[in-house]
Amino acid sequence: RIDGERLWNSLMDMARIGPGVAGGNNRQTLTDEDAEGRALFQSWCEAAGCTMGVDQIGNMFARREGTDPDALPVYVGSHLDTQPTGGKYDGVLGVLGGLEVIRTLNDLNIKTKHPIVVVNWTNEEGTRFAPAMLASGVFAGRHTLDWAYDRVDAKGKRFGDELERIGWKGSEPVGARKMHAMFELHIEQGPILEAEGKDIGVVTHGQGLRWIECTVTGKESHTGSTPMHMRKNAGRGLALVTELVHEIAMKNQPGAVGAIGHIDVYPNSRNIIPGKVVFTVDMRSHLLDKLNAMVDELLDRAPALCEGIGVNFEARIVGQFDPPAFDEGCVNTIRQAAERLGYSHMDIVSGAGHDACWINDLAPTAMVMCPCVDGLSHNEAEEISPEWAAAGCNVLFHAVVDTAEI
Amino acid sequence: RIDGERLWNSLMDMARIGPGVAGGNNRQTLTDEDAEGRALFQSWCEAAGCTMGVDQIGNMFARREGTDPDALPVYVGSHLDTQPTGGKYDGVLGVLGGLEVIRTLNDLNIKTKHPIVVVNWTNEEGTRFAPAMLASGVFAGRHTLDWAYDRVDAKGKRFGDELERIGWKGSEPVGARKMHAMFELHIEQGPILEAEGKDIGVVTHGQGLRWIECTVTGKESHTGSTPMHMRKNAGRGLALVTELVHEIAMKNQPGAVGAIGHIDVYPNSRNIIPGKVVFTVDMRSHLLDKLNAMVDELLDRAPALCEGIGVNFEARIVGQFDPPAFDEGCVNTIRQAAERLGYSHMDIVSGAGHDACWINDLAPTAMVMCPCVDGLSHNEAEEISPEWAAAGCNVLFHAVVDTAEI
Ligand SMILES: NC(=O)NCCC(=O)O
Ligand SMILES: NC(=O)NCCC(=O)O
Repeated sequence: RIDGERLWNSLMDMARIGPGVAGGNNRQTLTDEDAEGRALFQSWCEAAGCTMGVDQIGNMFARREGTDPDALPVYVGSHLDTQPTGGKYDGVLGVLGGLEVIRTLNDLNIKTKHPIVVVNWTNEEGTRFAPAMLASGVFAGRHTLDWAYDRVDAKGKRFGDELERIGWKGSEPVGARKMHAMFELHIEQGPILEAEGKDIGVVTHGQGLRWIECTVTGKESHTGSTPMHMRKNAGRGLALVTELVHEIAMKNQPGAVGAIGHIDVYPNSRNIIPGKVVFTVDMRSHLLDKLNAMVDELLDRAPALCEGIGVNFEARIVGQFDPPAFDEGCVNTIRQAAERLGYSHMDIVSGAGHDACWINDLAPTAMVMCPCVDGLSHNEAEEISPEWAAAGCNVLFHAVVDTAEI
Repeated sequence: RIDGERLWNSLMDMARIGPGVAGGNNRQTLTDEDAEGRALFQSWCEAAGCTMGVDQIGNMFARREGTDPDALPVYVGSHLDTQPTGGKYDGVLGVLGGLEVIRTLNDLNIKTKHPIVVVNWTNEEGTRFAPAMLASGVFAGRHTLDWAYDRVDAKGKRFGDELERIGWKGSEPVGARKMHAMFELHIEQGPILEAEGKDIGVVTHGQGLRWIECTVTGKESHTGSTPMHMRKNAGRGLALVTELVHEIAMKNQPGAVGAIGHIDVYPNSRNIIPGKVVFTVDMRSHLLDKLNAMVDELLDRAPALCEGIGVNFEARIVGQFDPPAFDEGCVNTIRQAAERLGYSHMDIVSGAGHDACWINDLAPTAMVMCPCVDGLSHNEAEEISPEWAAAGCNVLFHAVVDTAEI
């Protein structure tokens, strides 16, 4: 069994870097705080006897050697970056859980046949630089490295420049590594495990996602002196599309979600009718056909809705992945580990996207989930108990050791 | 007659300070650009033989002496600050039109019985620091000076601190000056004069205004893993209230307008359901009863609408003025000047608020308007012709001279 107290203390130590305003974290990707978190993680890995590799997109790989020089490594990890108003566990538990696996192996003096590599994937969250899971996506060949470097944040800063600035652009080619398998431990970020009273979620599938960036264009004009019939109010386009997205998600129940999280209004002045509103629709389903039908309905109906009020609607996809089905062998290994350890468990679908969803294309992959309070995540109030973290990490430990072979 | 070319050249010279991105201006109040515009105006006034006074809220008063030491001055002016994406004429025409009146009197060597004071009122636009017409409002006793100093912009900067920072906090008490009358020339900012083919609008009334800052509170959570029925999406509250405001304005036609120009979404991330949205409703009518009924309906219906989708609605008034009726004597002086000069003219209601609306409480006041292309204002593409500007300024000149007496 892993050392739950040591794991918890490491989580709390990492949470001191990039504190939020309400008890959570703001350690967004490629900020100074991200760099500080990476340095702390590196020092811990080196103290645990690992060697650190960094690739050209800043992914960090801490390696513990195996006994068979020909055996491919078992990977375990997640991400250390957070939302602007994020929690202390989303991503971090998976990385520090991987480190705890290594520390426990060291304590017990266990050697594995396959090497074990703990990984921190760069920019999983995708808030500062869309899309999410950017670096694992490049690793899996979904995006090119140059395309990733050219992503810009809201202030116009390039991903590539910011990666160099914080000093974490390595020399290793991205995606050159071969893997035996990959495991990711993550908090559920939803309410199901807690409601069902289960310690462990065995993730069999994920939801597919589409991020659709929409631009509604009207005409900037004075709120006081422009008669109602001469207005082209882009804000009304946002309002109609907000409700359309909700309607589409609701009529595809169960198994679908949709909302708008990001909205920029131009010029955003109290006495100017919005001339332009840019916003991103997030639609998801674990059923590919349903997901595609939802997006089609949005793109079909939104232009006419907007035209009806005199404004123009345009859209482009800025992030997407299809629903992944995880490797049955790895999923079984996790289920058996939970069973063997005596934890209550259930199969679940991941509502959120994860680096594991991309890596699943390259090597047998699966995920372990633990509950979180009230299903709350992407919120500074995100909470889990030390017991939940320890249970998830114990299952991770057994799955990794089973796969890496003693 | 005034010198139309000199007036136009001054307008173009001022427009070089704080250029926008699309041919207009971004010279927001209490920015470095505002300070630069003020310095240029001061140099012009001094070259025209005026003495400059500055009060504790940064209002600038350029005085040309009269022949009667006991006669109160006639005031003429408007504002030099602009919207973030503003035009070159909104406000500026009224200030530089006043300066052109002085320059023309100098050319013609005319002395007036009453002194004439050209005024630049601080922060008319109210975008950076709400409410609009802030400094003329303090001058007229609607707000206290300390309250004005404590207004903060979106970055948390205080009005009082920014006024000191740019070096335009004077020593004169605000509102100490007594006036014989006040005239303001302004572009219409609406489409009526152009549509009716009139050179001059004789402004008899203004619209009353209410700015209602609304806060919708839901719950920040993950867009992917939060089931639809557990969401508290503050963005949907914004959508419903946007359409409610439109519905209320439409059912009060004619003589009413309503829209939302300013919207801030928290935390504004693609994969976080908005936990909070703050936005400002702008409602106006030239009929006080109608205006009050519109606001009452909004405050009555919005909370229940929001409650129906599980989010909370709160509102507070952050700007307000009742519909002003301008001084009949001054309005007549303007109408007669237009007639005498042979300009086509009509009586109109001002759709926008103006400094003259506050000063109207203190002294006989009226406004002259000239057309603007397509009724477009609060837009960098705001345009007027040199002929329209000259016609408006000629009427202003005659009204001021008639009132200041030769
Ligand atoms: N786990 C997580 O929140 N990932 C970010 C990508 C997503 O929005 O699902
Ligand atoms: N003239 C003008 O745009 N003033 C700002 C106040 C208002 O919104 O009416």
